[in-house]
Amino acid sequence: MSAFPFPLRVVLVAPRNPLNIGAAARAMSNFGFSELRLVNPYEVAFREAKSAVKAQKVLEEAREFPALADAVADCSLVVGTTALGPRALEHRMRRLEYAGKLIARGLATAPVALLFGSEKFGLSNEDMSHCHWLMRIPTREAHGSMNLGQAVAVCLYELIRSPSAARTKPEPQRPAEAQDLERLTKLFEDILAQSGYVHTEDSTELKLRRLIRRMDLTGHDARVWLGIARQILWKLNADDQTAGKLLS
Amino acid sequence: MSAFPFPLRVVLVAPRNPLNIGAAARAMSNFGFSELRLVNPYEVAFREAKSAVKAQKVLEEAREFPALADAVADCSLVVGTTALGPRALEHRMRRLEYAGKLIARGLATAPVALLFGSEKFGLSNEDMSHCHWLMRIPTREAHGSMNLGQAVAVCLYELIRSPSAARTKPEPQRPAEAQDLERLTKLFEDILAQSGYVHTEDSTELKLRRLIRRMDLTGHDARVWLGIARQILWKLNADDQTAGKLLS
Repeated sequence: MSAFPFPLRVVLVAPRNPLNIGAAARAMSNFGFSELRLVNPYEVAFREAKSAVKAQKVLEEAREFPALADAVADCSLVVGTTALGPRALEHRMRRLEYAGKLIARGLATAPVALLFGSEKFGLSNEDMSHCHWLMRIPTREAHGSMNLGQAVAVCLYELIRSPSAARTKPEPQRPAEAQDLERLTKLFEDILAQSGYVHTEDSTELKLRRLIRRMDLTGHDARVWLGIARQILWKLNADDQTAGKLLS
Repeated sequence: MSAFPFPLRVVLVAPRNPLNIGAAARAMSNFGFSELRLVNPYEVAFREAKSAVKAQKVLEEAREFPALADAVADCSLVVGTTALGPRALEHRMRRLEYAGKLIARGLATAPVALLFGSEKFGLSNEDMSHCHWLMRIPTREAHGSMNLGQAVAVCLYELIRSPSAARTKPEPQRPAEAQDLERLTKLFEDILAQSGYVHTEDSTELKLRRLIRRMDLTGHDARVWLGIARQILWKLNADDQTAGKLLS
């Protein structure tokens, strides 16, 4: 169900909290990834997660491995996540924005493993030594460590996010045509005059015209406003006539 | 602590689960946002969240409001999140990638409210009517609904993510110089010859030279490999001499 030719394998190393395992599975399901692998999970947590959460399919098909080497054996790129700063000079460290591009490129030719460490300790140096490189989510330095389920969600989002969706401006609704805006301007001119808000002057007309253009109305909303304005004007006129009758 | 001139106000409407309130606060702290607002939260959940989680500061300063209108009163842009498809034609709906850009632009001039509905029902139509527009995280259709804490994390990540970090290739480690690669080639030529792997021919030298260039070594790693190769060669020669003595 993934958008990539080869599968991404989300590998949780020694997870302890069933809610986190469930949350990781749920984010995978949300974003269209299906291969969850657990290395040496706390058994109770894994059992609880299986019965708890909405991502049943991902969890049922999740595989357990005794050692990290086995869990990543069939992957051609192994990437570890860490909250740490540049302590690990032995490893190349990449920010998620760039790492996501490299992982997507990797998934074009072979399976990729994305590793998350345990809630308490993260990935160990031994775990990291299995990685081709490391990546970090750009959290702020003073509070770098993310919740496991949230970290999985953010990383997978980066993978499926579409740069072109950020560039294109989806505007399914047609903006109002000038003739409707001008009708609306005229109607409000009458309304303002009738209601005594202002005696219509040339400058008022211009102000009103600009005011209404700045509303940036869609065609639909302009027609709604025309209806409202007509009704107001009708009522103002009717009241005037009633008043005229009462006075006469 | 935010990177924006004006604050983003994360507004949770009628949240029920203390873990989700805590997770939302934690993601805010991770990504540098501090203003959390709760509309009509389940009181027990709010109390529990306050005592439970690592984002103490965000939670302590969180404000409670009886009604959504009050919670967003001082914001100039109000954006609702929803897992729904285009049901809400009355509202403009934007994908997170593009919405993030608009929110960032909004935060340049005034506070912005980002609304998340309750775990079970999301935002109501009444809630949405307070919004200028809606946005959705690009989850897959078959499983659109995200966990609340994860949804907050993903939205905030989109806000702080740096497009330029995706473009630039951070390569802090200097690649190996050609002279080191050539030294390594020569050493392995000798090793292959000494170990009987192959009788050195011209074509072997070329293959070996290309093989070593393809390793794409950093300067540091090239030096480590030089040390390893020298040691192997020393040991091979020493063994040969021993063997020579034993035979003589």
